[in-house]
Amino acid sequence: MVLADAGDVAGSSLPGAHTLSALGEDAVLARILPRLRPAVAALIGPGDDGAVVAASGGRFVVSTDTMVHGPDFRLAWHTPRELGWKAAATNLTDIAAMGARPTAMTVAITAPSDTDVVVLEGIAEGIQECLDALAPGAGVVGGDLTSSPVLTIAVTVFGDLAGEPVRRSGARVGDIVAHAGLLGAAARGLALLFDGARDASGEPDIALACALRARHPDLIAAQLAPRPPVLAGVAAALAGATAMIDVSDGLARDARRVAVASGVAVDFASDALGPDVNLALAGAEDHGLLAAFPPDARLPDSFRPIGRVVPGVGHVLLDGVIVDSVGWDPYLNWDGRAG
Amino acid sequence: MVLADAGDVAGSSLPGAHTLSALGEDAVLARILPRLRPAVAALIGPGDDGAVVAASGGRFVVSTDTMVHGPDFRLAWHTPRELGWKAAATNLTDIAAMGARPTAMTVAITAPSDTDVVVLEGIAEGIQECLDALAPGAGVVGGDLTSSPVLTIAVTVFGDLAGEPVRRSGARVGDIVAHAGLLGAAARGLALLFDGARDASGEPDIALACALRARHPDLIAAQLAPRPPVLAGVAAALAGATAMIDVSDGLARDARRVAVASGVAVDFASDALGPDVNLALAGAEDHGLLAAFPPDARLPDSFRPIGRVVPGVGHVLLDGVIVDSVGWDPYLNWDGRAG
Repeated sequence: MVLADAGDVAGSSLPGAHTLSALGEDAVLARILPRLRPAVAALIGPGDDGAVVAASGGRFVVSTDTMVHGPDFRLAWHTPRELGWKAAATNLTDIAAMGARPTAMTVAITAPSDTDVVVLEGIAEGIQECLDALAPGAGVVGGDLTSSPVLTIAVTVFGDLAGEPVRRSGARVGDIVAHAGLLGAAARGLALLFDGARDASGEPDIALACALRARHPDLIAAQLAPRPPVLAGVAAALAGATAMIDVSDGLARDARRVAVASGVAVDFASDALGPDVNLALAGAEDHGLLAAFPPDARLPDSFRPIGRVVPGVGHVLLDGVIVDSVGWDPYLNWDGRAG
Repeated sequence: MVLADAGDVAGSSLPGAHTLSALGEDAVLARILPRLRPAVAALIGPGDDGAVVAASGGRFVVSTDTMVHGPDFRLAWHTPRELGWKAAATNLTDIAAMGARPTAMTVAITAPSDTDVVVLEGIAEGIQECLDALAPGAGVVGGDLTSSPVLTIAVTVFGDLAGEPVRRSGARVGDIVAHAGLLGAAARGLALLFDGARDASGEPDIALACALRARHPDLIAAQLAPRPPVLAGVAAALAGATAMIDVSDGLARDARRVAVASGVAVDFASDALGPDVNLALAGAEDHGLLAAFPPDARLPDSFRPIGRVVPGVGHVLLDGVIVDSVGWDPYLNWDGRAG
């Protein structure tokens, strides 16, 4: 786990004089901004009322997504750097899913006044490390820092298109359905944390989470700091993908969105979904890419075929049989615990 | 107050079956999206992983700002429509302050599970009404809805530049310093609410706030649903403004940012700042535009001269005397009360 090391977890930050309220906004920003490198696309970066970002072809792709302490992460499990990494990674895949290359992002953080500034420094470092790894050249061009009882990270991310955007609505009967990235790993990591990283009263526990990291590094990393195939989005567009989506809420639920938008059905082959088919269909937060390709397309290396587009009206099938929609809903599925 | 009417305040929403957790994400979005009209610049609008937005000249201006229940607004005072209006308006002025024309925005909302959907409907209506009034043609191109213990609205806004962006750093000695919009009205409105719209225990009170609206409609509106001079930003750019900033944290504090960035000092004339000079210098949240113009520039109609750029190293002066920096800091000035 490149993102987790001793002294990096939220609970170990020094008490006292380094809270946001003790430092004030300007001093906090002065400690965060040096941790971020300029975006190649930034014509004017942070520090003015707005940034100016290059948009090749006279257009840009934009998407936004927020992570909230409690529903989306626990500080007892996530290190600040993992948190920054995940906030960046999950947004980058939305740009990838349009067939675009991420160029820049803005980051709006709300944080309690008693938050130690090292938490925000860690978040900034995690964002930059994620950009360097998954979207080289992209960078943070602006942001906002606001006092709040709850820590949230709202990222808005921008991308450049080489050709036409790949939408959810273009899948055609006969297309190959293919997937890039992991299936179910993030959900398995979350289940491990729920089962093995809570104390006797059910509260998220730092020490137990650290022990789990040692035993299951890949699954815990898949949940806490996912490494989605961001650049595979452009590759899919170049290979002629007819439709694409970021698999954030589970394969079945997100495939259904493609099926509904395209007016077709998606039929998965169970033998292509790994040993635990239900987990592959329902497991959320892997942030892989699900795409449809014409039957004669040459799939990019990162994609494996897992099904077919068949006639239908917005259904998802498994080996030809309709499956219920399963997956994550932020208002129906959260258990209400923070930590 | 066009934005406040009976039945529109948060506390009057129907109890029961219309909470976000009862409806789920898809049903909530189905009720919100029809309240938003497409942006003229939207090549692809909401509903995919990302939107695609036109960016004339191959570049765009971007800014982001978040409003948090407690530090930034009280639901006992703001109606949902006012809240949406204010979230849009305060972001639009950041684009205006770059000399750009707003084209589009994304809106990321975090809301408790027991929030009534009419609150989100009202926020959406307020955003659209603000766009129609202050930035015609601009529209919401995407968003995000997440469960959270605290209601927050994070807006990221985009704009088109006709010419070069107007930065904070271009003010030159001898320039005229001019302002468009109100000075101190939002702060007076907030003071009225703090003094007259809290119950015996100090908690924000809906009925008292409604009574205040009737007595001081303009000042309360200046605080709850400000009407900043958004299109004056483009006018300033065309008139040759050398520097510009959105006055969100108070005239003195924001003028100091221009002075620091430009390596000059800003000297205000007290007789141009209205009857209450301290209020004009310190009052936050008016979201007017402060700009520097060459001495021979013809000021746009919406701007009035209020001072001069003089030699200095980042100071603000009043009638030639240095004044301390005063204004709003989100971590130093919040009293911690919600409502």
